[in-house]
Amino acid sequence: MATGFAYTNLFADGLPAPAPRWTGFPKYNFIGGHNDPEHVPAAELAAAAQAVLRRDGADLALYNPHGPQGFRGIREFVVSKVKARGIACTADDVLITSGSGQGLDLVNRVLLNPGDTVILEEFTYGGALTKLQRLGVNVVGAPLDDDGLRIDALDQLLGDLVKKGAAPKFIYTIPTVQNPTGSILPVDRREALLGLARRHGVPIFEDECYADLTWSADAPPAIYSMDPSQVIHVGSFSKTLSPALRLGYVVADWAVMSRLVGLKRETDSGTGALEQMVVAEYFSRSFTEHVGELTGVLKEKLDTMVDALEREFGTAIEKMWRPRGGIFLWIKLPDRIDVTTLVAPAAGEGLVFNPGPEWSCNPAETKSHMRLCFALPSKDVIREGIATLARVCWEQTGIPERSANIRRTGGAG
Amino acid sequence: MATGFAYTNLFADGLPAPAPRWTGFPKYNFIGGHNDPEHVPAAELAAAAQAVLRRDGADLALYNPHGPQGFRGIREFVVSKVKARGIACTADDVLITSGSGQGLDLVNRVLLNPGDTVILEEFTYGGALTKLQRLGVNVVGAPLDDDGLRIDALDQLLGDLVKKGAAPKFIYTIPTVQNPTGSILPVDRREALLGLARRHGVPIFEDECYADLTWSADAPPAIYSMDPSQVIHVGSFSKTLSPALRLGYVVADWAVMSRLVGLKRETDSGTGALEQMVVAEYFSRSFTEHVGELTGVLKEKLDTMVDALEREFGTAIEKMWRPRGGIFLWIKLPDRIDVTTLVAPAAGEGLVFNPGPEWSCNPAETKSHMRLCFALPSKDVIREGIATLARVCWEQTGIPERSANIRRTGGAG
Repeated sequence: MATGFAYTNLFADGLPAPAPRWTGFPKYNFIGGHNDPEHVPAAELAAAAQAVLRRDGADLALYNPHGPQGFRGIREFVVSKVKARGIACTADDVLITSGSGQGLDLVNRVLLNPGDTVILEEFTYGGALTKLQRLGVNVVGAPLDDDGLRIDALDQLLGDLVKKGAAPKFIYTIPTVQNPTGSILPVDRREALLGLARRHGVPIFEDECYADLTWSADAPPAIYSMDPSQVIHVGSFSKTLSPALRLGYVVADWAVMSRLVGLKRETDSGTGALEQMVVAEYFSRSFTEHVGELTGVLKEKLDTMVDALEREFGTAIEKMWRPRGGIFLWIKLPDRIDVTTLVAPAAGEGLVFNPGPEWSCNPAETKSHMRLCFALPSKDVIREGIATLARVCWEQTGIPERSANIRRTGGAG
Repeated sequence: MATGFAYTNLFADGLPAPAPRWTGFPKYNFIGGHNDPEHVPAAELAAAAQAVLRRDGADLALYNPHGPQGFRGIREFVVSKVKARGIACTADDVLITSGSGQGLDLVNRVLLNPGDTVILEEFTYGGALTKLQRLGVNVVGAPLDDDGLRIDALDQLLGDLVKKGAAPKFIYTIPTVQNPTGSILPVDRREALLGLARRHGVPIFEDECYADLTWSADAPPAIYSMDPSQVIHVGSFSKTLSPALRLGYVVADWAVMSRLVGLKRETDSGTGALEQMVVAEYFSRSFTEHVGELTGVLKEKLDTMVDALEREFGTAIEKMWRPRGGIFLWIKLPDRIDVTTLVAPAAGEGLVFNPGPEWSCNPAETKSHMRLCFALPSKDVIREGIATLARVCWEQTGIPERSANIRRTGGAG
């Protein structure tokens, strides 16, 4: 008998590279959207599973027992959760998705043809960029400042694109705990953004994956809440509870929703029911409490990381965007550091981070930026990891010359 | 404020039709792959959830905590489960998917370019047909008899296609409880099929979604077990446990697996963890027992449906394929009945079935066939439903003239 698949010559064109065999997670894991393992409410989820399975277990015999938009309980919980973001909607306006990533895919497919143009924030979620590039869509980055989208610059950009006949199909924004900068767009800019959108005829695609994890409770209402006819809204349970549970949602007007549902039916046969049931059961009782506790923990980890970065890098950090919530920190090192050259040596030390170019509409201009996630590692691991990062950086680039107030000597530079 | 989404003019080309608002399930639900609601082991799943969450709950803090192929526990359970189908593999050969539908999508993407040709069984899973049509692939149906694929006819077909320069990229087969005919391919045909595949240079794509649900334990081993270098194997937990839990798997050689993993990473951020954990925990202890009980229940429901069809339709059923397992029955009515004309009037009576053309490579030749699933409705509902179907059929076509030995009079015809 032959060994190995005999027909690799028949593989389709343009496949992604074969995946390597998985060898476990690195020790200093500063990438992705992982969460704090010590704050998974395992016992409470077990109790929720017990309660909901005993009550509604027979539902599991059906595909999409409550219809293709998802379980009633979780949709009703989303309705109550987004109410805190100012959104008045019903369960009919909610689609449960397999992670917010599926929400992004579905909304993209409703609106985009290859060759279309979309506007994203200049620094933005890498996964959104990858999805759009795969669709053959032109991505234009809109400038950010410390409060998020710059409305003046966006107005100019929209005007230019419309004039060029490249009117964008949507403006994708993460207004509340922006990814990766952690900013929160003020209410006046939200209003101005809606005005621009209306004037230029461009819908807004609002991603609120991190909006529940803010350090203070004063975030302005979701843009969707200010005009549902202009906006499609997505969110997630990955960050508030668990990324391993693949649960996200879209809130949209029925004209959009009916298209999303049609597309989701072509994509899968529903989102996993047990996760919908258990999360609805648990969060209907404990959302505020759990998120309050988690946010406290995350803020402490952020403070630990900021301290460690200041200690290890000192003035070698040109800019640190202090996030107003979430799980990540965006920093800029001096221009002469290309962080992509640090990836391999850092990995050799068991350390991974998100290089700036992967989180940017203008990769060449973001080669000195990096995103560091602080949710997963313990505080001790954060401290060790940032010290390791500084050492690797110095070995590769001679920067930072001083760490913890001690001048490095010898080695590279 | 405007009502309704203001940018429907920006929708992409070629979207599927908007979904209607969901209004619940019909009373006589003979479609899809639903399961028996009285045999969902809810209490046992709750206990499994309790055990596994207390033990491994912290894993939920991570994306893909055991790597992109899925949780170790469920992959190890798949290894032991497919061993009963003769397959010797390790957890490295297993990819957990969000339902076997995702397995089909991924395998299709590994092997198919638009314009390619594939061979399917003449009557086959409607979902597989839809997916292939959407990919712009040419589908050729291979003749079946009561034992499944006819090897002589397939040999001829393969030769013709190769001669025409349209060598197929794979042969998709459901050899063990064929969908929709319920046949089981004998071992000598499996060997002959592998011989053909080797000779014509075509891999086999083996779908064993129903193979665990056979009335007797004498099914031949999976084709994959006979030569892993020639075959890609998919399976599911939808039929043995619950279709609402979106869990399936692919077993394949690493050359294929590494491509599937690469593609899955582009598609989602993993399959739901809680469902993997709970199913592994429950099935590692109770698979044989649960499946044994479920199979007994399904066989009784099949017998109920067969009796009802014989009573209500009598000789108006030209052929009934007696399934050797599974959840559905495939029948043929007289040629002059076009079952698609029954769909709307049946729906008016709260009854749905799968029209033959949707489950066939040659829709025009299958307009008198239908697939009836018997897993979901109770025996009483099956009896009532089949009586309703006979009445609707008679009202539309004049057939069957006799039901329950009583001659129908008046009305349509």
